[in-house]
Amino acid sequence: MVVSEAGRRIAEYPRPQADVFDQNCPSRSVLDHVTSRWGVLILDALRERPYRFNELRRRIGGVSEKMLAQTLQTLERDGFVLRDAHPVIPPRVDYSLTPLGRQAADLTDALKTWVEQHVPEVLDARDRHDARAEA
Amino acid sequence: MVVSEAGRRIAEYPRPQADVFDQNCPSRSVLDHVTSRWGVLILDALRERPYRFNELRRRIGGVSEKMLAQTLQTLERDGFVLRDAHPVIPPRVDYSLTPLGRQAADLTDALKTWVEQHVPEVLDARDRHDARAEA
Repeated sequence: MVVSEAGRRIAEYPRPQADVFDQNCPSRSVLDHVTSRWGVLILDALRERPYRFNELRRRIGGVSEKMLAQTLQTLERDGFVLRDAHPVIPPRVDYSLTPLGRQAADLTDALKTWVEQHVPEVLDARDRHDARAEA
Repeated sequence: MVVSEAGRRIAEYPRPQADVFDQNCPSRSVLDHVTSRWGVLILDALRERPYRFNELRRRIGGVSEKMLAQTLQTLERDGFVLRDAHPVIPPRVDYSLTPLGRQAADLTDALKTWVEQHVPEVLDARDRHDARAEA
């Protein structure tokens, strides 16, 4: 359903069609950003609510301060994340999704939710694969 | 709609809930595989039809032989991709999606399609961001 809705939108854009399979198309970098390891998890966390930097770091297991800062900057530049610095002491910075970021996050969340539900099938497949490889 | 369907499936699994935010949960590696740069594009290409290795390499701009082979192996082990080696001369190997892989590919395709449609908005956001940074 998501697909056919997106398919309908094609007709509304009189631009040359973007193509992620073309390495020179700018859509490739956008796809890389929203599907990067930390990008997916940041979008999904901010879908819950706005977060401060350190809160977000605690929410996303295993992310380093450097990778979180870098990925937030990339998503902010792409127009997916809003960085809101409050002029208070001590400084306080909130991160939230823009309307565009929320659309992307809804789709990465659908993928995330599907993955979480199908882990048992993937683990079974890995066991079968490794058993065949050893045979 | 995708989300609520996945939400319904939760009740069917009497297992502890998977959580991609937990770096030790196996769901993290599954998410990494389906959202990897080449993983997304391979799933999406195979959603069109089965491909042979070299065909697939031509379809996916910029992928190296090594990265394509590695990513196909990972997706095969996870149960998303079927590798079918025909006993003919010269050897012929077809890659296709399993039913599980097709489910994942439908979701990555929704994301890919959305990205392709929203590239102009992202490029505008980047221009505005860079203009602010220079000001």
